This record gives sequence, C-alpha cells and structure tokens, in this order.
Amino acid sequence: MTPPSRPEPTAPAQIAADPPAPSAGTVEALRDAVLSSSQAWETTRSLVDEVGPRFAGSPGDRAAVAWAQRTLTAHGLQNVRAEKVKVPRWQRGHEAAHLIAPYPRDLVVAALGGSAPTPPRGITAEVIAVPTVADLDKLDRKAVEGRIVFFHARMERTQTGTGYGKAVSIRTAGPSAAARKGAAAVIIRSVGTDVERIPHTGAVFYQADAPRIPAAALSVPDAEMLERLLAKGPAKLTLTLDSKVLPDAESANILGEVPGSSAPDEIVLLGAHLDSWDLTPGALDDAAGCAIVIEAARAIAALPRKPRRTVRVVLFANEEFGISGARAYAAAHAAEIPRHLIAIEADLGDGKVLTASFLGSDTARPAFEALVRPLVPLGVTFIPDDAHGGSDLIPLRALGVPLADLHQDATRYFDVHHTPNDTMAKIVREDLDQAAAAYAAFAYAAADMSGDLGRIPEDKRQRR
Amino acid sequence: MTPPSRPEPTAPAQIAADPPAPSAGTVEALRDAVLSSSQAWETTRSLVDEVGPRFAGSPGDRAAVAWAQRTLTAHGLQNVRAEKVKVPRWQRGHEAAHLIAPYPRDLVVAALGGSAPTPPRGITAEVIAVPTVADLDKLDRKAVEGRIVFFHARMERTQTGTGYGKAVSIRTAGPSAAARKGAAAVIIRSVGTDVERIPHTGAVFYQADAPRIPAAALSVPDAEMLERLLAKGPAKLTLTLDSKVLPDAESANILGEVPGSSAPDEIVLLGAHLDSWDLTPGALDDAAGCAIVIEAARAIAALPRKPRRTVRVVLFANEEFGISGARAYAAAHAAEIPRHLIAIEADLGDGKVLTASFLGSDTARPAFEALVRPLVPLGVTFIPDDAHGGSDLIPLRALGVPLADLHQDATRYFDVHHTPNDTMAKIVREDLDQAAAAYAAFAYAAADMSGDLGRIPEDKRQRR
Ligand SMILES: [Zn+2]
Ligand SMILES: [Zn+2]
Repeated sequence: MTPPSRPEPTAPAQIAADPPAPSAGTVEALRDAVLSSSQAWETTRSLVDEVGPRFAGSPGDRAAVAWAQRTLTAHGLQNVRAEKVKVPRWQRGHEAAHLIAPYPRDLVVAALGGSAPTPPRGITAEVIAVPTVADLDKLDRKAVEGRIVFFHARMERTQTGTGYGKAVSIRTAGPSAAARKGAAAVIIRSVGTDVERIPHTGAVFYQADAPRIPAAALSVPDAEMLERLLAKGPAKLTLTLDSKVLPDAESANILGEVPGSSAPDEIVLLGAHLDSWDLTPGALDDAAGCAIVIEAARAIAALPRKPRRTVRVVLFANEEFGISGARAYAAAHAAEIPRHLIAIEADLGDGKVLTASFLGSDTARPAFEALVRPLVPLGVTFIPDDAHGGSDLIPLRALGVPLADLHQDATRYFDVHHTPNDTMAKIVREDLDQAAAAYAAFAYAAADMSGDLGRIPEDKRQRR
Repeated sequence: MTPPSRPEPTAPAQIAADPPAPSAGTVEALRDAVLSSSQAWETTRSLVDEVGPRFAGSPGDRAAVAWAQRTLTAHGLQNVRAEKVKVPRWQRGHEAAHLIAPYPRDLVVAALGGSAPTPPRGITAEVIAVPTVADLDKLDRKAVEGRIVFFHARMERTQTGTGYGKAVSIRTAGPSAAARKGAAAVIIRSVGTDVERIPHTGAVFYQADAPRIPAAALSVPDAEMLERLLAKGPAKLTLTLDSKVLPDAESANILGEVPGSSAPDEIVLLGAHLDSWDLTPGALDDAAGCAIVIEAARAIAALPRKPRRTVRVVLFANEEFGISGARAYAAAHAAEIPRHLIAIEADLGDGKVLTASFLGSDTARPAFEALVRPLVPLGVTFIPDDAHGGSDLIPLRALGVPLADLHQDATRYFDVHHTPNDTMAKIVREDLDQAAAAYAAFAYAAADMSGDLGRIPEDKRQRR
C-alpha cells in the first residue's frame, strides 16, 4: 500500500482545559540551574566507577539494574520500577589475530558482538582486502573463497557523526556479504575515528542466507599496517575467536517519573540505554546519556511547580545487542502509546547539544520550534530536518510517537565508541552539563506545553 | 677528589692542515634536500612494519639487527658491521589486575620491565595510595606493610619533556622504596601524558637493599578510577604477574659510516637505539630516531663532496633495559674515544627540533653555535644550556666526549612512550623530516668544521 501523501496524524488525547502558561522564565531558570549545579558528571562517574561494563545479561548488567533503581529513587523520581526484559547472551572468549606473512606480528583485535567462534586452533588464510561491501560485491567468488576478507574503509570524523552511518556497514553487513562469496572469516578496520591501539566492537548482523563466519575488528593502527603490507604483497594470518552464545537471560528497563501536575497520563519520554558493550565501562556510551536524562528529571522533580504532563525516564535494557528493551517497552506500554507526547533519547555521549530537530506532525513543527527556543542561549539551533531518534525509539517511531533530536556534538564520540577506552577520562564536564541543561529545559517545556505535537506521518515511521 | 674549576680539556688530535672551508651553501643545500626528499618516514615504516617489537634478546631484536645491517648498506653507508653485545633477558607473561573491593573490575595493567613475578595465584592486598616516593617516605611502616602501594603522581605535559624526569621516579625508585617499608607489591599510574586505556611500561630499578617486589603500571584511566575510589574508602586488588628472567642473550650494535675525506679517523657519532620495549612496535621510540640518523647519513653519503671527518651511525642495542649497547660501544672503541669530535643521539621521537645545545669545552661553545646556525631557518634556536645527551651517550660523556642535543618537540612523545600505541599512526611526517634535515645539516657541519670542540670538563661528565 502506498502511503498517503498527507497522512492523517493520530492525535493524542487533547488536554481538556489548559491551565495558564507557566510563568515566563521557569524553563529558563531550570536551564540555568542545571547549567550551574548539574550532577550529571557525578551520575556518570557513579555508573562508570561503581558498575563499569554492563553487557546485556552479564553480572554487570544486573548491577546496573540495581544501580538504576537506586539512583532514580535517590534523584527524587517517583514510580521507580524495573520492567523485565528477556535479552540474548553472547560471551567473548580468548581472541587473537596473528599475522604470519609477510612478517610475524600480533595484531590487536576484538570479536564483533555476536561473532561466531573460530575452530579452537583458529582460521589461517590469505587475506583479501577491499574497502567496502560494495567493493567486495565486484569480486569473483574465486578471489574470496577460503580467504579472510579485510574491509578497511575509513570512518570520517564529523561534528554530526554522519561518518558512522556511512562506514558501519562493513561491520554490520560485511560478514554475511563475505560469507556469501565463500570467505572463511572477516576482519575489519575498526569503525571509529581514533588512531589508538584499541579495537572497536559492535554488533554484526548475520543474514539468514549466509553462513555465520567469524568476524573481528582490528585496531586502526593494526589495520593501517596491514593495509600498507597488502599494498606490497600477499599477507596471511590466523584469527582465533573463542566466543559463545549462552541461554537468554533476564534484564530490565528501569523507569522513573516526575508525575504531571494536571495531565499525569500524558508522557514526555526521556530515554537512554543502561547497557554497554562487554569490554567497556561505557562512559560516553551511554552512561553520559543516562546521566543527562536523570539530571534533567532530577532538576524538574526539584521544582516547586511540576509541568502538566509526566516526565518519564526510561533506561533501556540491551540497546547494543538488539534493542530488546526498546521492543519490550513498546509492547508493555502499548495502551499508553497514544499518550506519549514526544520521545527523545540521549545516546551520543557527553557532547554539547548543537541542534534540535523534530519528527511528528508537520503542522506541529512551529510548536516544536517554540519549545526549543529557550535552548538558543545554550548555542542550540533549531533545524527543520526530520529528527532521527535514538535506536531505542525505533519501536515508538513505528507506532507514530513524535520524536525529538537534541543532537550532540559527536566530534569526539567515535574515538572511543564501543571500546575499553570509553572512560571518565574522556568526559568533558562542561559539555555534559550543557547537554543536561538542554534536555531539562526541553523536557519541561514539552511536558508543560499547550496542545500537542501530532503523530509521525505513516510514511516516515520506518528508518531509512 | 674535587674537580678543578677549570678542567683541562682532553683535546682530540688536531687536524693537521685544514683544507679550505666547504663552499658556502653545502650545509644549507643538504638541509633543504633532506627537507624536500627525506626518506625518514619510509625508514621508520620499514622498521615498524617489517620488524615491529624488538626487545633486547627477543626474536624481534634479532630481526632488527638484520634489518639494520641491510638498511644501512642500502642507504649507502660503508663499513657496516655488527658489534656483539651481551644483553639481559626478561620476559613478560600473563598479567592481570583485578579490583576486588569496593567493586569488582578488571584493570588494564602492564608489568614494569624487569618486574619480579607474583605467586601464580597473585598477590591480594589492600591498596595504600601515595602520589610520590617522597610521600611514601613520610608513612609509617605499619601503614605500608603487606599492602599494595599505589603511586599516582601525574606526569605533566611539556614541550621539552621535562615532566618525565620529574614523574619517572615512581617507576624507577618506587618499587624498592615500597619494599623497604614491607609492601607486597607496587602499582603505579602510568608515566605518560595520555588518557588512553593503555599502560606504559619501562624499567624498574631494584636496589640491592630491598626485596624485589612485583611492580606494574595501570593505564591512566584505570589509575584515575582507583584514585577516585580510594578517595571514598578502602580498596583491595589482586595483582598477577607471570614474568621471568631468562639467560643472557646476544645482540649487537650496528655501525655504518660515511668515511671522512681528509680525517677519516675523526668521528662525528650519530646515535639512536635499535631496541624497543617488548609490547610496542616503537615507532617514536626509537624507530624515528634510527630513521633520523640513517637519513642524515644517507643524505651526506649521497653528496659528491664528503665532509673531512667520518660520520658514524651507531644503532645501539638494548637502550631500554640497561644501556648494554652503549657500554659495549664505549669499551670496544676505547682507543678511538679521543677521536670522537662530538656525539648526538636521536631518542625523542618524531618531533621537530626546537633547540640546539652543547656540552664540551666551554671555550668551544661559539664554534658549536656556528655549527647550528644553518639550522635557524628550520626553527631551531641555539640555547646556552648544557646538552644532556641521550641515554646511550652516558658512557661517552663519562669519558669526556662532547655532546650535542638537537632537542625535539616532546609534546606528544609521552602519550605513547613505552606502549603498544607507539605506532606509525602517531608519526607526523613533516616533523620527522625537519628533524632529519636538522641532524643532517648539523652532522655535516660538525664533520667538516675546522678546529675541535674540546672535551667535557671533568665535573660535568656524570649526569645529575
Ligand atoms: Zn549507545
Ligand atoms: Zn628511547
């Protein structure tokens, strides 16, 4: 069915009698209060130092769930609760890549999340190098068969982080593309912008029509060395990955609220994800996001006058390895979906918010622009592009819930994304506080607005 | 014996009849030729990519010795030879640090070079934190006994690299100082200026009057986390190091020369060290230094008119773990020492040369200043401070051989020093080429100068 060019938005229940607009200056005062006395750095530190790595289903994940309940309560949120989520479990084991020819050398490597293991003694094969999946597609099967395919496209550093979307297919789609041509295994240049000797993991998406071959990321310096050597002649290496799949485990989405003063059934959703990849304390990804939304809610909860609608913090389970928490949330809250005014997720680290954008009813765009006007003094610019939404908002987007992006400066984010190097040492407190202030001001303004933001048109409910 | 206030310099044999000064412009043309067509990056790459880690006595060290002979020959040097050097052998094994309290966490750790092993099941103890060795000295034995001492002084980033000298005693002297107070083991904040999750190794110097306790470096982010946790309460960890000492092995200093045209017995020594720490490909430390001196000699060898004296490249064995090569060179060349006009070592990475300084006869300082005048257009400033000399020049300094420093910009050097992260990705080609040009111009000017540079006064022959 072709979507109508002007879809009828599914409006949430109107607020019957709007009370008078909040006294001018509430949002601005909130913004400035967060900016000057934000606890976001301390909240980030607490999750990073006291919990650390928290991959779905791991002991760290269980510690994070307890931390989140404790922390939301301590920050003055109400209705704090854990909603069960079933998560898949994958466990990294010993991993090694050893170059055999032209020179012997240990390479720094990490299995991609979900990778199949190699046989115990590894896979030893010639390396065939291609920048991208498109380049692989041009090769004969004969050139690939039995080899280790090395994808070495470079990720571009940009302020918006768009380089990631362009580069990441070597990780997500590369392994199955190589397997379809008979490859024995895949190694990729880490999808990241740094040049440190630390590989970036991240999920591989095996496709049903291809054998599941082992896949791993080399650190950027190792990948560049291999690229230089391959420019001069053949190379051969042994890849050993000892990963395994364990039975599904239980995790939880953690919710906490600032109940609305006059329309508590209407929801402004502030999301972030509680989990991290297994090998990282996840300071930027996504302890910072958790801290930003917790700080926004804490500051609103501390106000004498609460906004009309409920501000709900959702710390999603397992974003990294299949958005299990996001799907569980959408299912568990199906009845409430029409009463979600708007949803936003903080999942781009500790950077300053630079732009605000919206996806909802086209006619609501001016109302959204008004909501983000108090963010202008923070350096935030409204842009008329459609918001993209965090990964955990995909199921809500599919159901038409309007989305906002408070898009953070992503210049540094992909230096440490999905690596052990994503630590407190990389958090820039001033930037983090600006982001928390922006989220707080936006959340209050949205929760207290008159009218609504419509629904996402049908033809924009799927990510492209 | 008190050294005389004005020691009589031991002059090298005078050059009998000085030929006319080289046509003005030779040094400048050489400088510019290196700047525009330097092969230093490629030489660095070759050692890093084709040999990689090359710790004294290891298979990599043997590969480096072969590489050096091949490379000096290929670059047009003469009298290329390997001079045997006996080196001690120490081997890193499994290493781990696991925080037990207040929270369980794996810490990123590397044994210090030469560290004693722990028992196989590790050492588990409470941690006592002090910034420096001086702070430890103030503590009662009771506060230290049976504990793991954690030295967490921070190294300051400076252009000259002086922060290293101030911070490094926690690594070199810390373990014995802690052992004298009954400590079970030592961990240190890595002596480095980065904030990456990669520890810096480097030699520990066990003193004869103290038990040899295990000692390791935490990555800076791990050390900072531990420091934060210790500010809130006690911490306990398990350190496991499986290192061992092996029988001494054979390595070699590699020499190559551009024979002097009229005084071939007189020597201008250009040094660098061929070895690296075990866990690093050593691009800045010291493949870059090797490449700088090789490039300087290559460019001089390619000139139609050679300088009067011999330019001798010495790639020293085992600088990192006890300057074995430097001692062997001084012993093997004892008879030639008086004929060493001056010695210089490139061992500060790929940075641009910023200053030139001298240590020799005080009366020769103006002559030295004249030698480095052609370096001024490269941005090099003569400074009247005494030169320090690289570590491999310590034995020559003790014998009075004049030293030069072409001091490189060390701002970035200690980000990767003694880490696996010291890779080609960190080499700034333009800076490296400037340094090669400076070394080439200086080496030619010195090798072709009239007169000499005297000897180091007796009271300045020991480092302070
Ligand atoms: Zn994330
Ligand atoms: Zn060095």
